Amino acid sequence: MAEQIAGAKKASLSLVERKQLAARSRIIEAADALFAERGFDAVSVTDIAARAEVGRTTFFRHFGDKTEVVFAKEQAVFDAIGTTTSAAWDPPQSVASLAGALRALEPLVLRLCAQATTDLAAYRRHVLLVDAHEELRAREAVKHQYIAQEFTRVLLEHDAPLDVATIAGQLAVACYSSGRILATDPADLVTTTADAFRRALAMPPAEPTH
Amino acid sequence: MAEQIAGAKKASLSLVERKQLAARSRIIEAADALFAERGFDAVSVTDIAARAEVGRTTFFRHFGDKTEVVFAKEQAVFDAIGTTTSAAWDPPQSVASLAGALRALEPLVLRLCAQATTDLAAYRRHVLLVDAHEELRAREAVKHQYIAQEFTRVLLEHDAPLDVATIAGQLAVACYSSGRILATDPADLVTTTADAFRRALAMPPAEPTH
Repeated sequence: MAEQIAGAKKASLSLVERKQLAARSRIIEAADALFAERGFDAVSVTDIAARAEVGRTTFFRHFGDKTEVVFAKEQAVFDAIGTTTSAAWDPPQSVASLAGALRALEPLVLRLCAQATTDLAAYRRHVLLVDAHEELRAREAVKHQYIAQEFTRVLLEHDAPLDVATIAGQLAVACYSSGRILATDPADLVTTTADAFRRALAMPPAEPTH
Repeated sequence: MAEQIAGAKKASLSLVERKQLAARSRIIEAADALFAERGFDAVSVTDIAARAEVGRTTFFRHFGDKTEVVFAKEQAVFDAIGTTTSAAWDPPQSVASLAGALRALEPLVLRLCAQATTDLAAYRRHVLLVDAHEELRAREAVKHQYIAQEFTRVLLEHDAPLDVATIAGQLAVACYSSGRILATDPADLVTTTADAFRRALAMPPAEPTH
């Protein structure tokens, strides 16, 4: 889906825009390679720009800092999902109830998992990098909160009540985080995340004595 | 509970330790007052140390940076809960199932909410401060992930399966975050958070057609 959108977009882009997209891809690839070679801390924006054969100005046109590059792929996938859902998302069922809203978000989260792990080796490098740096873990935690807010927003657009939209957004991201922690191999990410949704949605009601 | 533990601790502390605790409290109060007066960005560690009448060395004995002071209260409450639960937590029910584990965590989260809002005016200042600074929101998001991990740890200590412990920890924090977002007034935090747990635990099973 992200690729389709990217493809459709590309066809209508000007030469300047296509050059900018190409530069952005080169920056991401250069950063990925340099972080793997030297470690995150030992790489500067200047190093990344030089390897990508762009100027520092171009770098900063695309990214606020080197941390931002680490999450470029997740962000792109997520932006594509955001665009789709805002424009023409047809929730698979009513989002008036919490269970309905959470079930409606599940396929979006699983798509995010599937696309994030398309390149398993790159995803493994990404996970190792984030785990090793508190700064990156912080950025990731913030990104997950943005994702929760975005889910809340699209649910509200489909007339979910505010409390349902808020709780469903947070629970969906909780399932996503659980799936990431429980996936000992990135190849399992979709399965472990789907399992977290299945379990969250299948909690039996409390015993009457409770 | 946190106060009881703090009280019990205080009785057995040496003079030096009591002086350190007093300095820590003065630092927190000084930072709170200065952030409210001048805004977070305009206050330095030197300013806080001066107002608290301690040296910078003492400041850094207690806190890594000024950001850390903002979360001192939440951290203290949470540490007290962590200590209690590790030592002698008696889960109100079996934590073998996800629903059981989440129900067992609920009172811990509600206690965190209740203690965080003991001083409503201070809590309101805290929320405004965090909302206004991306750096603080990032730190908060990381802290919530630590809380989730801590919940997972105590559940594992009580023989919950790894997947149950992981998902329950994430869902508990999702309910906490939801409660915070939905509490338009901090005085409602316990109620909105309890409501998030109630709803998460009462999702009806999917229709057979799904």
